[in-house]
Amino acid sequence: MNRKLRMGMVGGGSDAFIGAIHRLAALMDNQIELVCGCFSIDPAISHSSGLSYYLPESRIYNTYREMFEKEVLLPEGDRMDFVTIVTPNFAHFDPAMMALEKGFHVVVDKPITFTLDEALKLKAKLAETGLILALTHTYSGYPAIKEAKARIRRRDLGEIRKIFVEYPQGWLSTKQEDTGNAQASWRTDPKRSGKAGCMGDIGTHAHHLAEYVTGLRTVELCAELNVFVPGRLLDDDGAALLRFDNGARGVLVATQIAAGEENALKLRVYGENGGLEWCQHEPNTLLMKWSDRPTEIVRVGNGYMSAITKHNTRTPGGHPEGYLEAFANIYRNFSLTLRAKMNGQTPKPEWLDFPNVEDGIRGMMFIDAVVKAGYDDTTKWVKF
Amino acid sequence: MNRKLRMGMVGGGSDAFIGAIHRLAALMDNQIELVCGCFSIDPAISHSSGLSYYLPESRIYNTYREMFEKEVLLPEGDRMDFVTIVTPNFAHFDPAMMALEKGFHVVVDKPITFTLDEALKLKAKLAETGLILALTHTYSGYPAIKEAKARIRRRDLGEIRKIFVEYPQGWLSTKQEDTGNAQASWRTDPKRSGKAGCMGDIGTHAHHLAEYVTGLRTVELCAELNVFVPGRLLDDDGAALLRFDNGARGVLVATQIAAGEENALKLRVYGENGGLEWCQHEPNTLLMKWSDRPTEIVRVGNGYMSAITKHNTRTPGGHPEGYLEAFANIYRNFSLTLRAKMNGQTPKPEWLDFPNVEDGIRGMMFIDAVVKAGYDDTTKWVKF
Amino acid sequence: MNRKLRMGMVGGGSDAFIGAIHRLAALMDNQIELVCGCFSIDPAISHSSGLSYYLPESRIYNTYREMFEKEVLLPEGDRMDFVTIVTPNFAHFDPAMMALEKGFHVVVDKPITFTLDEALKLKAKLAETGLILALTHTYSGYPAIKEAKARIRRRDLGEIRKIFVEYPQGWLSTKQEDTGNAQASWRTDPKRSGKAGCMGDIGTHAHHLAEYVTGLRTVELCAELNVFVPGRLLDDDGAALLRFDNGARGVLVATQIAAGEENALKLRVYGENGGLEWCQHEPNTLLMKWSDRPTEIVRVGNGYMSAITKHNTRTPGGHPEGYLEAFANIYRNFSLTLRAKMNGQTPKPEWLDFPNVEDGIRGMMFIDAVVKAGYDDTTKWVKF
Amino acid sequence: MNRKLRMGMVGGGSDAFIGAIHRLAALMDNQIELVCGCFSIDPAISHSSGLSYYLPESRIYNTYREMFEKEVLLPEGDRMDFVTIVTPNFAHFDPAMMALEKGFHVVVDKPITFTLDEALKLKAKLAETGLILALTHTYSGYPAIKEAKARIRRRDLGEIRKIFVEYPQGWLSTKQEDTGNAQASWRTDPKRSGKAGCMGDIGTHAHHLAEYVTGLRTVELCAELNVFVPGRLLDDDGAALLRFDNGARGVLVATQIAAGEENALKLRVYGENGGLEWCQHEPNTLLMKWSDRPTEIVRVGNGYMSAITKHNTRTPGGHPEGYLEAFANIYRNFSLTLRAKMNGQTPKPEWLDFPNVEDGIRGMMFIDAVVKAGYDDTTKWVKF
Repeated sequence: MNRKLRMGMVGGGSDAFIGAIHRLAALMDNQIELVCGCFSIDPAISHSSGLSYYLPESRIYNTYREMFEKEVLLPEGDRMDFVTIVTPNFAHFDPAMMALEKGFHVVVDKPITFTLDEALKLKAKLAETGLILALTHTYSGYPAIKEAKARIRRRDLGEIRKIFVEYPQGWLSTKQEDTGNAQASWRTDPKRSGKAGCMGDIGTHAHHLAEYVTGLRTVELCAELNVFVPGRLLDDDGAALLRFDNGARGVLVATQIAAGEENALKLRVYGENGGLEWCQHEPNTLLMKWSDRPTEIVRVGNGYMSAITKHNTRTPGGHPEGYLEAFANIYRNFSLTLRAKMNGQTPKPEWLDFPNVEDGIRGMMFIDAVVKAGYDDTTKWVKF
Repeated sequence: MNRKLRMGMVGGGSDAFIGAIHRLAALMDNQIELVCGCFSIDPAISHSSGLSYYLPESRIYNTYREMFEKEVLLPEGDRMDFVTIVTPNFAHFDPAMMALEKGFHVVVDKPITFTLDEALKLKAKLAETGLILALTHTYSGYPAIKEAKARIRRRDLGEIRKIFVEYPQGWLSTKQEDTGNAQASWRTDPKRSGKAGCMGDIGTHAHHLAEYVTGLRTVELCAELNVFVPGRLLDDDGAALLRFDNGARGVLVATQIAAGEENALKLRVYGENGGLEWCQHEPNTLLMKWSDRPTEIVRVGNGYMSAITKHNTRTPGGHPEGYLEAFANIYRNFSLTLRAKMNGQTPKPEWLDFPNVEDGIRGMMFIDAVVKAGYDDTTKWVKF
Repeated sequence: MNRKLRMGMVGGGSDAFIGAIHRLAALMDNQIELVCGCFSIDPAISHSSGLSYYLPESRIYNTYREMFEKEVLLPEGDRMDFVTIVTPNFAHFDPAMMALEKGFHVVVDKPITFTLDEALKLKAKLAETGLILALTHTYSGYPAIKEAKARIRRRDLGEIRKIFVEYPQGWLSTKQEDTGNAQASWRTDPKRSGKAGCMGDIGTHAHHLAEYVTGLRTVELCAELNVFVPGRLLDDDGAALLRFDNGARGVLVATQIAAGEENALKLRVYGENGGLEWCQHEPNTLLMKWSDRPTEIVRVGNGYMSAITKHNTRTPGGHPEGYLEAFANIYRNFSLTLRAKMNGQTPKPEWLDFPNVEDGIRGMMFIDAVVKAGYDDTTKWVKF
Repeated sequence: MNRKLRMGMVGGGSDAFIGAIHRLAALMDNQIELVCGCFSIDPAISHSSGLSYYLPESRIYNTYREMFEKEVLLPEGDRMDFVTIVTPNFAHFDPAMMALEKGFHVVVDKPITFTLDEALKLKAKLAETGLILALTHTYSGYPAIKEAKARIRRRDLGEIRKIFVEYPQGWLSTKQEDTGNAQASWRTDPKRSGKAGCMGDIGTHAHHLAEYVTGLRTVELCAELNVFVPGRLLDDDGAALLRFDNGARGVLVATQIAAGEENALKLRVYGENGGLEWCQHEPNTLLMKWSDRPTEIVRVGNGYMSAITKHNTRTPGGHPEGYLEAFANIYRNFSLTLRAKMNGQTPKPEWLDFPNVEDGIRGMMFIDAVVKAGYDDTTKWVKF
């Protein structure tokens, strides 16, 4: 198969934020082309969006149902290979399940579904069909995060003792959902976002990053969730103490009322011998800290980096990569895996390194646990 | 009274760390002179230390009891005005109480005493005698911390919602107490340090800073304390969720097993309008963050700083002040207050800005609460 | 015209660094597709490269001459719109001139040509044909650089007095050109690189950035060029004092023997009222410094940024953009301009904001002046 | 001799900046006491200043001549050991020479004298008398600078190729000398400051630091000096290209019109194997950069530091030291040397590590050369 992979989209109209990000990430590597989409629940927006993406009218659909039904009838040489789902949380499961039923692979934004039960159903369907699903936990796509994971796995830090992960944002410090801000509107609405607000939106990213980098699994947590902005319907702030399966302890902070903060996701991990630190605002730098020698500024793009990191890097040292490239790494590994599969080959291990349905299930378990613990003043620890 | 104030010391022999810091801090401003001391429980060390500080033999004592008894008999023109107590925690109360009984003012290192009850007794004795006590919570002496407090008080950030305070160190990542490290030895020994290890040593600093800067009071906390290094007798790590009297929430982290960290005390406070951030490793910078405009790098020594900050600054902008100057600010404000009092004058408000017995009592309450909560898996919140 | 623009390439085979960057930058915005190319002087490499980019064999050419001649014969609905030239410096002029003669627009890497004379010829040809040429001075594509320019233009800093621009790299600290490093090989070879080494490769970037951001023009310079690595044929280090047309003064540093440096391009500009600072290693931050108030950390993606900056930004605040997005901004503005032109419309001013032949000529003048001054110990100032 | 050293002062009244710094630096280590002074040319200010420093009236003098004449008559057990001279530049030589003639050791602020000739006379007098002179080039007192020097000396970087030293300030961006600012007034006045303004005030610091850390000597320079503020009588900005005795090249920048800058002295040195970087604004950090491995953040106070650095450090890692401690290191090493000499002992090599008359002479040579080159558009290189 010597052609680009063909992507369809559900959501991602010209009025949406994350859809544009997905297209940039999917297209930059010249491995994927956008061939069709249902870009909005509003057919007019879907139509105008599709035209602005240079699609033919015949491949711009009014509903995802229509898209799946018509695409599956197209000749193999034309029809889409996979669909990217970039709708609000409540509208992940149905199109994802239908795509799988029709034989299309899936990329879906996080959290994977509205409920844990839906996530488990997707897992079963994937097992049944042998199709592939990628979950866009973007931050795990950064090359410096790959490096952190590789170094912890080779036990540079020794046994892990302590994990701090924090994700402070400030954009919901005021009641943005009353101002016509579409992002704020659905993210603070339990009907569209789910049972968690801040914790679902960004807490899941923080939790995923902690487990992804360390390879550890949370076993129980103690948490408090807060609603600081009067009238808001979901948590806009929270913190959790975490216990991991190896006995390590963690602190997870996620807040959207840290006024003045942008998107300051930060991870620190400490083991017996040293620690590491990474912050999304300066994503190409990984600090390695040692008990007995100077902290090292490990920088993406240098020759001393691990093979897995180099595989996820596009530019030489000193040419900063950013959020879009991290996002694109998920698409690239997904597409390498998918292409291998379509060619009947075995994907290389490094190609399989993208978040999948298991990560999605962990995220839903995190949401369930943190919400259960977060409002209960009497139960200290909730099992995961 | 046109002379320097006269300081005696309990502890602070030439083999001690914190005693040297106290002398540097006390002496640099040319307001205080060291006149006597009992510098060690070992008379030979006390003697050799005193000589190395250029004291006459007659003013070098074998016990603090001897010192207080002999000094009080000296003519007013010679005898010490106040005593600085820099012994391990278990040996704070007795000399402090005896000093007060003999009519000497007191400077004492933190935590103020071994138990809350002792702290309350000191408070009563101070009220009875009218003497002055300063507690060296060093970090509250930094000019940028004064600025943070002033700005929060004038409500630049609006109502405070969230406080993050963290104090990661790594020096106890291994069992230093078995290596002959005197600092590690007493700080991990419940008989000398008290019921808390890490939380008493540095958690109290973090807690004090949070309350000092915001003016808020913790009302309850949820905590977990950990002992990571096998065989250690006291906590070497912990985290607490805090609830403040205005409804604000906080997260406090203190750890001494964050391998590779030095002394990275950091405070972040967020209100309705913005946030602020300060880190002890770059102490002359205060970041002011805003929802609607760029973060400002507020720097000590500039003309735009508050009056209270300028009062606590010795050098112009760009001439970094450090830990010793922060420490010296406590001594300077204490000495300005003491001098005023000795001259029958009313101290200016800015002179009274040093930690005192009330701060000491808060610290002991914090230790009691965090230890109670820290090992209890069933009680979530402990009142303060 | 509702279709993507069609790009051909000269150079950029799968063994080349900068060609891959150009493709990433050109493709990510879904405005341009790669339709043909002559990717290497070696036909086998050109062929295999083209196939790996998913091109049909018919559009993979052995020579650029063949490409231009065959493409021009294709129907309008198929043939390329513009060519991107990413060969070493000595091979810029011929394909660029031929492209223009055949009616194709041009994107070319910097420096624009081998000699100033060639650049002037391209300018004349562009004027004659009305075609468009973009020069990829990448660093001027960063959104924070757009912001710096906008703020200087609106005179936030007052009259500009001082410009520091530095570009330290370390990768040529040893004789890389003897190790089979293809990049080092041609960049240190006067036959392929031209009369300047370091100054042509990165000094031109630094000089362009200074003029681009300030809108000032260098009028004379004093310089020293050095060759530190024995046996190297071109300068690997140099510094220049600059005089600008408004009386401002500057210092330009470019070096490739600053061992341990990556690509630390940094610009500082000071005016009567304040200064600004930008570093490529943290490209989304612009520091604004003021005489009488705190330094501001101006961050890309925030609502307070200038319109021109927002036009050149793809993600919200806190989602770092990098080198590839800066590069892509040149392609995007070029493509917006080209599309407007092809549609008979007038490009918006912000679309025209990409480096062009005039910038290329300035670069060649800089090379001439700095080389002339750089080795002459008796002439202090060389006119520009 | 078991007593503190006795210091007198010339200058440093309560209205002066640098005098207060000298007292803080001299006193903090409990090795020196202030015993007398002529603190101002105005006897009333001298008197009130001396009283505020708790001196007896008998030791407060109206002129330095009176001080030297009366002090020399005091019994050995009372009279001062050395004098610190903190007057403007034009008033360094006379009191320094008279002090030496009377047998007093000298500490003097930089630049050492008004002219090179005066500096040479002091050198001769020192040789004749065997007395000691310390020159307060503060920045060489920082522990991280000691570490940089030690590492270069042991050839960690290999042969040195390139030195960048810059000292940007902004406080003279406007005509401060017309506003009653005493600092600005004398520093911009050729009668009190000498032939150089900015270059004498801070350029000399930058130059000293470069030579001190590398052990290299400048042999010639090319420079431009500028006066940006209309009506100013001395240079307020300048830059120089430097050639060192081993063939290394340097760039020195000193400016006082970099609006918004505080005191951002920064040194970078590159050798064959790596580079180092230090900035006064974060003085406890030394960056070590390497061609083939990560940059290291070398931090003052850690166990891995050199012996000379530990000798110049007062606090453990993570307790930031600042400008005053750097200053105090000069006083401490001077006092250790002086005490040894007075005790008939040989000073240890690390005690002799303070700037002396030779450094002062280098500074005057730098001023002569940079002023000669700085205004001459025809002579490119000036010998040192």
